[in-house]
Amino acid sequence: MKPQDPNYATRVRESLARQAFMELLGVSLTHIAPGEVHLAFVVRDELCQQHGSVHAGVLASVMDSSAGYAAFTLMPAGSGVVSVEFKVNLLEPARGERIEARAHVVRAGRTLTSVAAEAWASGTAGETRVATFSGTMMCLVGRSRTG
Amino acid sequence: MKPQDPNYATRVRESLARQAFMELLGVSLTHIAPGEVHLAFVVRDELCQQHGSVHAGVLASVMDSSAGYAAFTLMPAGSGVVSVEFKVNLLEPARGERIEARAHVVRAGRTLTSVAAEAWASGTAGETRVATFSGTMMCLVGRSRTG
Amino acid sequence: MKPQDPNYATRVRESLARQAFMELLGVSLTHIAPGEVHLAFVVRDELCQQHGSVHAGVLASVMDSSAGYAAFTLMPAGSGVVSVEFKVNLLEPARGERIEARAHVVRAGRTLTSVAAEAWASGTAGETRVATFSGTMMCLVGRSRTG
Amino acid sequence: MKPQDPNYATRVRESLARQAFMELLGVSLTHIAPGEVHLAFVVRDELCQQHGSVHAGVLASVMDSSAGYAAFTLMPAGSGVVSVEFKVNLLEPARGERIEARAHVVRAGRTLTSVAAEAWASGTAGETRVATFSGTMMCLVGRSRTG
Repeated sequence: MKPQDPNYATRVRESLARQAFMELLGVSLTHIAPGEVHLAFVVRDELCQQHGSVHAGVLASVMDSSAGYAAFTLMPAGSGVVSVEFKVNLLEPARGERIEARAHVVRAGRTLTSVAAEAWASGTAGETRVATFSGTMMCLVGRSRTG
Repeated sequence: MKPQDPNYATRVRESLARQAFMELLGVSLTHIAPGEVHLAFVVRDELCQQHGSVHAGVLASVMDSSAGYAAFTLMPAGSGVVSVEFKVNLLEPARGERIEARAHVVRAGRTLTSVAAEAWASGTAGETRVATFSGTMMCLVGRSRTG
Repeated sequence: MKPQDPNYATRVRESLARQAFMELLGVSLTHIAPGEVHLAFVVRDELCQQHGSVHAGVLASVMDSSAGYAAFTLMPAGSGVVSVEFKVNLLEPARGERIEARAHVVRAGRTLTSVAAEAWASGTAGETRVATFSGTMMCLVGRSRTG
Repeated sequence: MKPQDPNYATRVRESLARQAFMELLGVSLTHIAPGEVHLAFVVRDELCQQHGSVHAGVLASVMDSSAGYAAFTLMPAGSGVVSVEFKVNLLEPARGERIEARAHVVRAGRTLTSVAAEAWASGTAGETRVATFSGTMMCLVGRSRTG
């Protein structure tokens, strides 16, 4: 997949830095390539639900951001990206020390981009795929300030 | 819809109190009835994305919890609830002062319950439906400690 | 909801008449209003799966067409409509004599329209909601020949 | 992935033979392995929508059946399978001479199995991925007659 904007990585990093909610979750960028973004965070109690696993909404949040940015790597300079819809399947309780969301573009269109992502939990027991995600991202042309 | 457990409301409140992530978001219970749960929170900067709207993942999180608890109101005493899957459609940028997620059970089965939810943003401009949610919740029998 | 094109009903009927697959299923239009379309068919063996219920894909097909046309009622003259994505939840085995898909627009945008639908089975035992649907439809401007 | 029933392939073939709707579509089994099923059909006019592409519901139908049978390969003898929910993303107009749906199990549980599938269109222009699918299948224990 070929980026239209050679500065795609800088653009993603700057936009991520403005996502206050990703900061609240403690998310950092671990991989970026054209059509691919991985985001990770360290598990802590306040991100969990009543069973002691990471809340499904936290997984959805990080997969959604990684998917949006995977799409954004292929969008033109000066554009913005928003989520149209996504679906999450929860496979296993999300336990461990660290969660990584790994997103890749399935098909990039001019207006809409289809993206898939997975969330992996890692810890002393190794690595487990805990959730899958499929979503649609929309390109907002000429909204560079909105990232 | 008839609850199997007359203490369903207490059970939901106790489980919600153990959802550390809902506390981090500042969520409180605003309505509970058999098959229905509403949860609300005050919008603050750290729940937003790069465009200044509430992050789609925050909306997903609160709709998922309200949906899980709507299903939970109809489950037997001593059971637990987990999300199997959900889909979110984002309709409008989620701006305003307060977000409320409103969930109701579509069909309650012995093992699986289908739930629909909506997220509404309210502020000086009135109230706007900003997202819809459909999901499947699973009853875990005999796991009262996990809520 | 206000149609932009006063001839929306004619436009839907003409497009439906070109949907060969809807003819194969035996589908007919039972209701049309701005933002709303209902389609129905008579259950027959060749639309069923291995359990003797109507195949989930048949339900998806009819809900998808009803949803696409519900969106299409609000689109401008000279446009076309295509499905971007949809999700189906199966609630009950779809048995009975007749199935009706009922779709309504949740939010109509210039490019994308969010639609919800339900499938109802009716027979001697009364009427049962057997499936729900949420989807996104896209407006193709200036593609009147493609309907 | 290890099948619990060594006769899984026979079981799938027999169940598919009872899916009258798959016969109406002209579907045949092209691949089967533990956790994997591919189904294909030849494109004909009566499976198309108003734009001359294969109807999204036909794609959903065949992906749903392939996904259900992929799950079914891993279920015990004497069980049945039904769809709980699925989501479809439409990537490209489905044109060409032949469509193949390719499903594989993402995670097999005792009650629920998560499955992913894709639909590929092939013709003189080569092969194109036209849709993706994610779904949840449920095992019905002791319902061998219902397949």
